[in-house]
Amino acid sequence: MRYTIGIDFGTQSGRALLVEVETGRELASAVYEYANGGIDEVLPQGNIRLGPDWALQDPRDYLEVLKRTVPAVIKEAGVRPADVIGIGIDFTACTILPVDQAGVPLCMKPAYRDNPHAWVKLWKHHAAQGQANRLNQLARDRNEEFLARYGGTVSSEWFFPKVLQIIEEAPEVYEAADRILEAADWIVLQLTGVEARNACTAGYKALWSRQEGYPSREFLAALHPKLENIVQEKMSEDIYPAGSKAGYLTPEWAEPMGLTTNTAVAVGGVDAHVSVPAATVTEPGKMVMVMGTSICHMVLGTEERFIEGMCGVVEDGILPGYFGYELGQAAVGDIFEWFVNNCVPARYEAEAQERGINIHQLLTEKAAELAVGQSGLLALDWWNGNRSILVDADLSGMIIGMTLNTKPEEIYRALIEATAFGTRRIIQACEEAGVAIQELYACGGLPHRNPLLMQIYADVTGRTIKVARTTQAGALGAAMFAAVAAGSEAGGHDDIVEAAKKMAQLKDEVFIPDPKRHRVYTQLYGEYEQLHDYFGRGQNDVMKRLRVLRR
Amino acid sequence: MRYTIGIDFGTQSGRALLVEVETGRELASAVYEYANGGIDEVLPQGNIRLGPDWALQDPRDYLEVLKRTVPAVIKEAGVRPADVIGIGIDFTACTILPVDQAGVPLCMKPAYRDNPHAWVKLWKHHAAQGQANRLNQLARDRNEEFLARYGGTVSSEWFFPKVLQIIEEAPEVYEAADRILEAADWIVLQLTGVEARNACTAGYKALWSRQEGYPSREFLAALHPKLENIVQEKMSEDIYPAGSKAGYLTPEWAEPMGLTTNTAVAVGGVDAHVSVPAATVTEPGKMVMVMGTSICHMVLGTEERFIEGMCGVVEDGILPGYFGYELGQAAVGDIFEWFVNNCVPARYEAEAQERGINIHQLLTEKAAELAVGQSGLLALDWWNGNRSILVDADLSGMIIGMTLNTKPEEIYRALIEATAFGTRRIIQACEEAGVAIQELYACGGLPHRNPLLMQIYADVTGRTIKVARTTQAGALGAAMFAAVAAGSEAGGHDDIVEAAKKMAQLKDEVFIPDPKRHRVYTQLYGEYEQLHDYFGRGQNDVMKRLRVLRR
Repeated sequence: MRYTIGIDFGTQSGRALLVEVETGRELASAVYEYANGGIDEVLPQGNIRLGPDWALQDPRDYLEVLKRTVPAVIKEAGVRPADVIGIGIDFTACTILPVDQAGVPLCMKPAYRDNPHAWVKLWKHHAAQGQANRLNQLARDRNEEFLARYGGTVSSEWFFPKVLQIIEEAPEVYEAADRILEAADWIVLQLTGVEARNACTAGYKALWSRQEGYPSREFLAALHPKLENIVQEKMSEDIYPAGSKAGYLTPEWAEPMGLTTNTAVAVGGVDAHVSVPAATVTEPGKMVMVMGTSICHMVLGTEERFIEGMCGVVEDGILPGYFGYELGQAAVGDIFEWFVNNCVPARYEAEAQERGINIHQLLTEKAAELAVGQSGLLALDWWNGNRSILVDADLSGMIIGMTLNTKPEEIYRALIEATAFGTRRIIQACEEAGVAIQELYACGGLPHRNPLLMQIYADVTGRTIKVARTTQAGALGAAMFAAVAAGSEAGGHDDIVEAAKKMAQLKDEVFIPDPKRHRVYTQLYGEYEQLHDYFGRGQNDVMKRLRVLRR
Repeated sequence: MRYTIGIDFGTQSGRALLVEVETGRELASAVYEYANGGIDEVLPQGNIRLGPDWALQDPRDYLEVLKRTVPAVIKEAGVRPADVIGIGIDFTACTILPVDQAGVPLCMKPAYRDNPHAWVKLWKHHAAQGQANRLNQLARDRNEEFLARYGGTVSSEWFFPKVLQIIEEAPEVYEAADRILEAADWIVLQLTGVEARNACTAGYKALWSRQEGYPSREFLAALHPKLENIVQEKMSEDIYPAGSKAGYLTPEWAEPMGLTTNTAVAVGGVDAHVSVPAATVTEPGKMVMVMGTSICHMVLGTEERFIEGMCGVVEDGILPGYFGYELGQAAVGDIFEWFVNNCVPARYEAEAQERGINIHQLLTEKAAELAVGQSGLLALDWWNGNRSILVDADLSGMIIGMTLNTKPEEIYRALIEATAFGTRRIIQACEEAGVAIQELYACGGLPHRNPLLMQIYADVTGRTIKVARTTQAGALGAAMFAAVAAGSEAGGHDDIVEAAKKMAQLKDEVFIPDPKRHRVYTQLYGEYEQLHDYFGRGQNDVMKRLRVLRR
């Protein structure tokens, strides 16, 4: 038997998952919570305060994940280190850090440790919005073609806005940085000594494309003179698709992790993207929904199409040989969590407690008894803005149809339905752009927890939904790419299609749309669309004016 | 010292209030809860089920109020019966019943007691909507002028739809009825032996006007042949303004109530309408808001104007010599009650309990800390439809602007603000029709309970609000009209203006609009108006379509 280990670096913790290469069986997993967690108020040494919207991390926490979780899973699974043929990494993104020539993060060096810009900027660092705005304006003014690949808007979370903030606010850090790396690539550099940047983060976060490369030197120079040569000076144009082998574990890392230097290391990836084959999907026409606090919608295509409001289209960005499309909804599980924390009366909490179920289960049970349309409610799911289609963080939530008889479970169901309408709107945008979606595949936490929600998504979209068997699609996907990186000669797999056939499974339970419910939902979706356009496309910008008043 | 007693017949109970004629001092009050309450499922004898939307009452409960509460207040106050110079009645309306020639309700006669149509139809009996629709359609087709006096729409709660339902569903009851009376007039008939119908219910509920009388014989015949002679056969054209003396207590009623036959009895009235002088208002330019589960907005005018969506304009309908305007919001306190029953989390209830305050107080305290506009929320206050302006029961509630950080107190405040915007919209309609509103006066339960709400109403409307000192404005108003009915020769008052000067008081606390908050609220009100028209005037009838789907 041969094994690989997938290591999933999340926002709060890192997790290792050890799986059997032949079957995908998950033998062991281990989690390490980052000691310094998300750093958003003050640097760990306690002396430096951060501004609003900052979000940093400590790269030492990532190294601790490697040292603690990998030995733990090997021990728990009871496998021989020599049989672990590969390691794969998936990471949050865009999560970047400046390093010196030896790959040491600047924040680990005494000269820079008190400079917040020397630390890891986490994906949700939102303090570079001004830089993003200027980048977008310049790109529009210059009619830069790359904008179309990102639905017309570059997010403040991405590579260039974050780097521009460093240049402007801490030029000395920028100067001192030999490279600026995605954390996923930095981990691979640590483990192998090789810088092998992955196509996923390069494409979705650093505006790279296989055809066009990065934004032009002229554009970058116009944005800031110091950016003119950033690609040549601090990045790389050697970009590798998922499943590529970066190298093998160095002795320095094989030893503390309890592995051998024969262990192949795959190039890094992003959680949502590596989840696609973990949900068994390796071909076009099948949309993978990574469903948790938010939803990422991932699709493969054989041609480059421009979908309204997509997060991005990247060749080789998900699987080699395909254009990978990413779209998303900024808040899904987060909305239900908001609801139960703020809007559910004590008698419901008491009932749930008495019956020994959680509040989501109770609400779901009551909501399941409602017929489609029975509540008379309709909502827009923009509690955290609209990510795909409208790409507008200033939009907000709306709910309509309340009467004096409206019950909490009716609102709860309306919120679930609103998020399903949001997904249907995304599917519609894909199909309007010529990217067909025949079937839906789901992974992440929500599909395993809430069958009513899944049935509603099937009924709303009119599409069958299959659910990945794993509850750790990110780590499993990373382990699958590790098996590909190791290759069949080492007992792994030749390519990700074979790996998916062997290692990825679906649950038996399939959610099939009910035609009658789908018909009523199509009526409701028509109402959703009309309000979506009314509030989202400038007919009535009340949401934005309310936001301005708030500030 | 001389005294009068006001008796306020509400939806759940009746209340007597004994007051000093010279000062309005409230000496004693007593409440009797109706034994049979609201009858909406099955007749009290248990054998007859009612249809949906039915709401009946038992007239014997009204008589019990007289027999129990009047002796109780006389005893509690310790006054001599001979010093009680008058009794006044206010009642819910339109609340009607069929009676025989002797004034006995048909439901009290064995031959009819099993027929639901023989019982009192309570104001909120909504089963005559079909009849109301046909009446409205016919009136529009015939361009009946009376429609304009009722904002263009006759409610299913009013006299003719309810009577038409009796004719159509129980013709034998209609035939057997010698008269069909408002409950207010029936009580006066019981007490005095005199049928003296009051101008308030005749005007606001039975489409009567001092100039035009009732709807024409031709119109009524076209609506239903049996209605052609209803006015002559089962109603009356002798209509008396508030403060008129119907007569004196008969010996049959003086004895059980513990009073003398020298006690004058005023013609009946309606709670909201008799509250106007109880809030000290006896002249135009001052709007009285009767604030509780809903709000009634009452204004006096010297000319007949047609205000959009008003409930009605009736000459002598509130005070003799004035046109009385009534407008309203269908749900106000009811919305806040809905919110605390359905949308407030356990930790808030626990905090309130711990601090020994009620949940409204806790939410109000937290909401008071928010600046205007800080929540970013805006709501439409149509949880029970829109009564005035749009006159559309099929509209529903809406709230916009939610984020993942939205807190319960922010929603609570947005709901209060929405009802204040609704009142501002009503004031605007009055002024657009030439009915000036300089000052606001409030009575009812809410103004005494929630100063934040009152300040928000002042800030939103930009008008000073004075609050009646009494918490029983209906009963006090009835007692004031009783003093007028008794007249100065008996120790009462010559007219209601004098009665108001002596008997009605305001609280010292006045709510004065803050110009800065008013400016921000005017911005928010602009947003409210735009959404009001978008959802309420046919640009997007989604609320109605959602309601159709619900059924």
